Amino acid sequence: MARSAELFTIGLDLGGTNIQAGLVDARTRVLARAKLPTEAHEGPEAVIDRLCQAAREVTRAAGLPLKRVAAVGVGAPGPVDVHKGLLLQAVNLRWSSVPLAKLLSKRLQRPVFVDNDVNVAAWGEFVAGAGRGYPDLLAIWVGTGIGAGLILNGQLFRGAHFTAGEIGHTILNADAPLGRRTLENLASRKAVVDQLTHLIASGHPSRLANLAQKNPFSIRSKALAKALRAGDPLTDQLLRQAAHYIGIAAANALTMLSLRCIILGGGLSQALGRPWVNWVRQSLREAVFPPMLAKCPLRLSQLGDDAGIVGAARLAADWKRPHC
Amino acid sequence: MARSAELFTIGLDLGGTNIQAGLVDARTRVLARAKLPTEAHEGPEAVIDRLCQAAREVTRAAGLPLKRVAAVGVGAPGPVDVHKGLLLQAVNLRWSSVPLAKLLSKRLQRPVFVDNDVNVAAWGEFVAGAGRGYPDLLAIWVGTGIGAGLILNGQLFRGAHFTAGEIGHTILNADAPLGRRTLENLASRKAVVDQLTHLIASGHPSRLANLAQKNPFSIRSKALAKALRAGDPLTDQLLRQAAHYIGIAAANALTMLSLRCIILGGGLSQALGRPWVNWVRQSLREAVFPPMLAKCPLRLSQLGDDAGIVGAARLAADWKRPHC
Repeated sequence: MARSAELFTIGLDLGGTNIQAGLVDARTRVLARAKLPTEAHEGPEAVIDRLCQAAREVTRAAGLPLKRVAAVGVGAPGPVDVHKGLLLQAVNLRWSSVPLAKLLSKRLQRPVFVDNDVNVAAWGEFVAGAGRGYPDLLAIWVGTGIGAGLILNGQLFRGAHFTAGEIGHTILNADAPLGRRTLENLASRKAVVDQLTHLIASGHPSRLANLAQKNPFSIRSKALAKALRAGDPLTDQLLRQAAHYIGIAAANALTMLSLRCIILGGGLSQALGRPWVNWVRQSLREAVFPPMLAKCPLRLSQLGDDAGIVGAARLAADWKRPHC
Repeated sequence: MARSAELFTIGLDLGGTNIQAGLVDARTRVLARAKLPTEAHEGPEAVIDRLCQAAREVTRAAGLPLKRVAAVGVGAPGPVDVHKGLLLQAVNLRWSSVPLAKLLSKRLQRPVFVDNDVNVAAWGEFVAGAGRGYPDLLAIWVGTGIGAGLILNGQLFRGAHFTAGEIGHTILNADAPLGRRTLENLASRKAVVDQLTHLIASGHPSRLANLAQKNPFSIRSKALAKALRAGDPLTDQLLRQAAHYIGIAAANALTMLSLRCIILGGGLSQALGRPWVNWVRQSLREAVFPPMLAKCPLRLSQLGDDAGIVGAARLAADWKRPHC
């Protein structure tokens, strides 16, 4: 294999809890991976050090010098001015206006491209996953919160203020009390766990009762998936309800944008898999207009945790003006 | 004026009730206008004859031979495959799959371009009205129903199935009974008049009581505007409520697409004017995310009835593959 002629890029996925890194080749294969804790409380400098460390780890694991890496792509948890490489805001890191591309490229001496984390995951699915062949797609990522990435006419659509895709903040129940109106209020993992904890506290039986009483924060996607598979009726009911609202939000986007494909990803979708996708699809089909759009494929993410890594790496490879 | 060097196009706006036509010059001025009844019950052939008649009337009025017209643009009330010039469906005309561009170009011997009526109105506002300078905009048209046209990156965005912009069918009250969930159910002129008629029938006083009891269909946008200006409390309450929902639907679109401008048009918006726009803006500002998008301008249509004519004419002028 003429490795010297190949284009290698690094994808970094900066999350509130972990940093994930991958060395990606031109065929979107992930050749090496690394994972480090984010430790956001230590502040931007320390987190940026760890992003660099993760980048170095994947090149070391692949036996490739860092200077052979054509570019580094980063998915960051907030809106990003991609032209300036500026992370405008990251609520769960408590950052605002961090010139992430500049800071990273100075340390790594490589061109760096930064974009929103769900945008890069959507791009990963489009170039190498469930979205291949669908130039108009919406990728909905469901975890603690709910975000989306939009690809229109084969390009990421970021909007005038780089905030496009905030589907979690769309209103689905305009007449409900505040705090129960938006998709995120109704269907994020946090919303499901809050409801579960509340119902358990008021006497509803559930396999998750012990966890809920000890520490609700410990109920993450895998615990919900396990309870669902074990046939816990309360978990089943609440997840079906969440899927129902996600289907309606997806239908609203489809009705507005006449898309070709919708992809479901994120921690909760990955953990729940097929039944979850089927519930969302059922709801979407009943809610979309015109009815022929009910045929729009709704697919589970194929790349899982790699979506962000692959998408960030490929965007960095193709970006015309990376920061360097 | 070197008229011979100028580009003249005709814009035709095909509505359920009327056909409106205009002869438009390269500077988007409307040089002559015509209006004919649609008489949809007579079937497509008769309606197409009247579209041709309207086109001929505007050239005659301007003293210009039809062969000097570079192209004819049509706004039609339904989704249009713009590449094939095919009106896919028009519920209020009871048409489906009508090859409108082909039929019209055969009769007129001019290149013909057809698009959806709200799309062409949005384009009119973008090139010559309230949307100038805003390459990412949503134009919401409120009348008997509610539709929208989307311009993204300076281009009309029609979506994979030419149905983008169906904002009236987005769901705003997921938990409400069927028939009270979508924007159109909650805020179209038909929805407002239905509620008004219902409340009057159950004893609520209103200046529109006589009209409502005789013939609710006679309560059109101008009657509502007149009752509002006269201080009728019931009309005021129902229109504020409709504006509230339109603001939420606009906010959802803004949250998803991070747009630069929203335009309100259509018969009801034109008749009600500033107070209506202010109510919608207030609701939008409270509902949008991130909050900085509350600064997005919300503007009343500047072209009114001419938006469709001007937009259709300009799209026809610039269309690369018109039917001829």
